[in-house]
Amino acid sequence: MNTNRYCVIMAGGIGSRFWPKSRQTMPKQFLDILGTGKSFIRHTYERFAPMIAPDHFLVVTNRRYRDLVLEHLPELKPEQVLCEPVGRNTAPCIAYAAYLLRKTDPAAEMVVTPADHLILDETTFRSIIGECFDYAAANGALMTVGVQPTRPDTGYGYIQVSDDAPISKVKCFTEKPDLAMAQTFLQSGEFFWNSGIFVWQVSSIVAAFAKYLPEHHQLFEQLLPVLRTADEEAAVERVFAVCRAVSIDYGIMEKADNVFVRCGEFGWSDVGTWGSVYQHARKDRYANAVPSEGCYLYDTRSSLVSIPKEKVAVISGLKDYIVVDTEDVLMICPRSEEQNIKKYIDEVKFHNGERYI
Amino acid sequence: MNTNRYCVIMAGGIGSRFWPKSRQTMPKQFLDILGTGKSFIRHTYERFAPMIAPDHFLVVTNRRYRDLVLEHLPELKPEQVLCEPVGRNTAPCIAYAAYLLRKTDPAAEMVVTPADHLILDETTFRSIIGECFDYAAANGALMTVGVQPTRPDTGYGYIQVSDDAPISKVKCFTEKPDLAMAQTFLQSGEFFWNSGIFVWQVSSIVAAFAKYLPEHHQLFEQLLPVLRTADEEAAVERVFAVCRAVSIDYGIMEKADNVFVRCGEFGWSDVGTWGSVYQHARKDRYANAVPSEGCYLYDTRSSLVSIPKEKVAVISGLKDYIVVDTEDVLMICPRSEEQNIKKYIDEVKFHNGERYI
Repeated sequence: MNTNRYCVIMAGGIGSRFWPKSRQTMPKQFLDILGTGKSFIRHTYERFAPMIAPDHFLVVTNRRYRDLVLEHLPELKPEQVLCEPVGRNTAPCIAYAAYLLRKTDPAAEMVVTPADHLILDETTFRSIIGECFDYAAANGALMTVGVQPTRPDTGYGYIQVSDDAPISKVKCFTEKPDLAMAQTFLQSGEFFWNSGIFVWQVSSIVAAFAKYLPEHHQLFEQLLPVLRTADEEAAVERVFAVCRAVSIDYGIMEKADNVFVRCGEFGWSDVGTWGSVYQHARKDRYANAVPSEGCYLYDTRSSLVSIPKEKVAVISGLKDYIVVDTEDVLMICPRSEEQNIKKYIDEVKFHNGERYI
Repeated sequence: MNTNRYCVIMAGGIGSRFWPKSRQTMPKQFLDILGTGKSFIRHTYERFAPMIAPDHFLVVTNRRYRDLVLEHLPELKPEQVLCEPVGRNTAPCIAYAAYLLRKTDPAAEMVVTPADHLILDETTFRSIIGECFDYAAANGALMTVGVQPTRPDTGYGYIQVSDDAPISKVKCFTEKPDLAMAQTFLQSGEFFWNSGIFVWQVSSIVAAFAKYLPEHHQLFEQLLPVLRTADEEAAVERVFAVCRAVSIDYGIMEKADNVFVRCGEFGWSDVGTWGSVYQHARKDRYANAVPSEGCYLYDTRSSLVSIPKEKVAVISGLKDYIVVDTEDVLMICPRSEEQNIKKYIDEVKFHNGERYI
């Protein structure tokens, strides 16, 4: 293994789109929503483990999930878990890890990955990440990983390439398009899904922060003397209290001129919604996705049912529904209305406070 | 209070039509399915308490429910709970109580009532029961209570009267008719619902057993010497092991020539199905019956939702459904298919044994 290479796992999400299965106390990255036997963050760790040594992982998370991270990734030492006092989107999250590496290993190269994505073809994926590391090191490039789109998905960001070389300069980033535009993107062949996975040298991303997010650069540069000292936590608290929330895409990737994309096909999904879980789950002959045992379905089709272990469900007459039962919350809603989950959460919260959230 | 009057509550049902809320370990009579704050058996006791002294109640139940009965009716002494080793329909159940009273109070008069019915107008009801006691005592009659029908219900038995006097000789009993016949019954004005509530002198019903169910008479008469002795349980075990299962309606009421009916209106229902619970429950503006708190309904109409206390349910897009959630079983089915509950139970039992039944 290349000893300068690090993997930074972003695991700070607080989890609401998979409510009621995901909860503030147990967000998506720590769940096994697809019923694979392992949590998303565990899969993410194991995906990179063949190419990154255990002590070269960093996980950036909200501090309330510190113990959960160490529980799911017992290979890590506590100091490999960087705790944000509050989420400020991806740029500060990445800056925390990047500036720490700048201090401890200035020659570091890093891959940044969300903790909660699905990747089916991990061998191809690792080979692509390897290419990205090589290209980033050779060219001082900020690399992003693009995914060959298979449908006009309006929930993803898109990356337009400049040419059809395996590694292409990025022409343009586009946030979630409407359906017509997504269809145009798909037909053009020039657009790829933005996986949110990045590869670069620490020196390159620090230089980009200095140029495109100078406030953040200043704040995190001031942190350098106290990182890995007893004062780190208090200083990080002060930095996150004042630093602006901004995504790495908007803050740097869309503006920098050394951004390149390696596009590929490796069975990627951000598994961002129950609909996406439905899509990836194994289905029975009536197109029901029933990862749980103990479900007895009658006249029920194209539905997703998730119930607690040891519980039994008898369900009749549902078409295209999501049924998620947990110890203290039951949700039944049409698959087409999963975007309302936020509304449900708000109403339950209004009447009960944080208890069921 | 008339000191010869007794109330016999039949509480031996094992509860399956309200599955998964009713369970073998907790049948309907011990549940508060309508959300009134009291169990059915408690309501039944309190309904008769103004006219029957506490020590003049007898409850006949399956022996596995003995402790539950005493818990729900702490006014009773243990010897007031008569335990059947096995259910043999209503005739043996009633015989057990009647022959016991024959021994302890030969002049006894008794009202027999199911433990799990709903009666809204209890004052009118008690006045009717009082009339029945008087008429039965004066005429040696076997009295049954008829209910003015309000719809052509095919789930009830019907009683045809001979005339329109308040107390009429019964012309005919008819078990559950088909819809066309039920409509004819309703239009004729001669037919009333059979409430399954009976009033008679113990001497009258014992004479009827002797005449119409001689085998049962012989078996229960043999019991007399041991009733209220240490040998009672073993002897009752032997009697129930051999006695034929038969209903009091089929075995005696349909055959005897001294059967009279007092018809009335007192807001009666046997609450025999979830549909009947729905009918009697308070509904919101969208016709949803939601006795439980913590339910958040969207685009949901004419549905019945029952969830455990302390649990929250978010339900969207259901029309005419029954949703019953319990600690270990969730059932979702169209209201029109509640007759399938038995099928559901069978399948769950096939795969899991008695655990969820």
